Amino acid sequence: MNNDLLIFVTNDDGYDAKGFAAAIEVARHFGRVVAIAPETVQSGMSQAITMYRPLFLRKVREEEGVEVYALNGTPVDCVKMAFDHLLLGRKVDLVISGINHGSNAAVNVLYSGTMGAAIEGSFYGCPSVGLSLTDHAADADFDAAVEYGRRIIADVLASKPALPLCLNVNVPIARPEQIRGVKVCRQNRGFWREEFFRREDPRGKEYFWLTGEFVNHEPESEDTDEWALAHGYVSVVPVHTDTTDYSRMEGLRQVIR
Amino acid sequence: MNNDLLIFVTNDDGYDAKGFAAAIEVARHFGRVVAIAPETVQSGMSQAITMYRPLFLRKVREEEGVEVYALNGTPVDCVKMAFDHLLLGRKVDLVISGINHGSNAAVNVLYSGTMGAAIEGSFYGCPSVGLSLTDHAADADFDAAVEYGRRIIADVLASKPALPLCLNVNVPIARPEQIRGVKVCRQNRGFWREEFFRREDPRGKEYFWLTGEFVNHEPESEDTDEWALAHGYVSVVPVHTDTTDYSRMEGLRQVIR
Repeated sequence: MNNDLLIFVTNDDGYDAKGFAAAIEVARHFGRVVAIAPETVQSGMSQAITMYRPLFLRKVREEEGVEVYALNGTPVDCVKMAFDHLLLGRKVDLVISGINHGSNAAVNVLYSGTMGAAIEGSFYGCPSVGLSLTDHAADADFDAAVEYGRRIIADVLASKPALPLCLNVNVPIARPEQIRGVKVCRQNRGFWREEFFRREDPRGKEYFWLTGEFVNHEPESEDTDEWALAHGYVSVVPVHTDTTDYSRMEGLRQVIR
Repeated sequence: MNNDLLIFVTNDDGYDAKGFAAAIEVARHFGRVVAIAPETVQSGMSQAITMYRPLFLRKVREEEGVEVYALNGTPVDCVKMAFDHLLLGRKVDLVISGINHGSNAAVNVLYSGTMGAAIEGSFYGCPSVGLSLTDHAADADFDAAVEYGRRIIADVLASKPALPLCLNVNVPIARPEQIRGVKVCRQNRGFWREEFFRREDPRGKEYFWLTGEFVNHEPESEDTDEWALAHGYVSVVPVHTDTTDYSRMEGLRQVIR
């Protein structure tokens, strides 16, 4: 642990999640920590921003080298509040988002509030890392995620990477010594198919709960994040934020008059 | 107008937005329309999904060839509700999301509820098009967006494109005859920088409104969507949903042990 660097930490499970404390533990290895997390759970909030209601920021606690705030907004709101207000003018060296309770591999990167914040963090000129554990339990065991998160971030920072850089790191459920290693992967191609859970309210009105199942369209592809996690590896996917599909441009130019 | 195809329409401004009626007008050129839009404005909701409260679906109106529903959820919830419940088992030929009141060019594609829904639509095996007009006004003039939206979609459908296909179409403020043409572009590189508007509530407690300014880092690049719009063209950006940055994989493999 040193105090040379300034690390910003956020998440999508809220400021009192066990995984948030684990992310602060990772961050403390690298320097001083300023953290802003949502007041309430913001899972599935993607890169959403809050446009139509005001945001209240409050300090939750402060101790040696760690300041923690809560914001009544989305994960991306937390990042913007840090860089464009609370830490404005200070050099931030690293963003850590997480540690998420649940996988953000494959297409989950698009729905995830954890990864929404990590992507947003990469817009502000420092490496940004989303950390997730494939365990939704509130009391999940974060030991392996803390250890591998720290190791991966140390390696990446030591390499002085070109920016922007955003990483989607997922850790399987295992004790640290059971992890088989780290794989740099591509995002698995697969989608969720939902099953709406139908219920009736006390007045007989129908309503639905969104619930679904991830369908892995390529379970045999050994270069994907889903494969790595299923086989006991930590997955690291570099995420870019230019969503242009360059491979389609020329074809579309031929078609659209 | 014909009734051969089945078109699903959604948006992020809500079921009673003028732009939503404009999107249904575009869709009616191609076939029968089933539309589900959010009950309330969902701008900036990205690809968010609703996990922690139930969803109520209600029919708003039905007329010749058009059924309109409202859902108390996000734009992506609307798409999932359509494909995985309301239209389950029926072949949908096209998704239209919009027409958004406001630009979704450049990095706005990541924050936009309109584009979140368009991306989600592309996961279900049909072409999916997000349409946006660079005018936030509630009573904006959608004539050019309707005309160019129809023309672009007709060209794309006639080409029987490979799937998945997701397009981000933006139309500048102009009368149809003033539009200089259509450009297939890449997503402009630029970010928002926020300025938090500080206020105090009646009890003296500080709060903030998120407000910002888009910073175009490459205003001279003629191949971007921002350039096209600034010069009177309709922009079309093909959007892909594999966010892996393949260019970084080998370098990371060298770095992470």
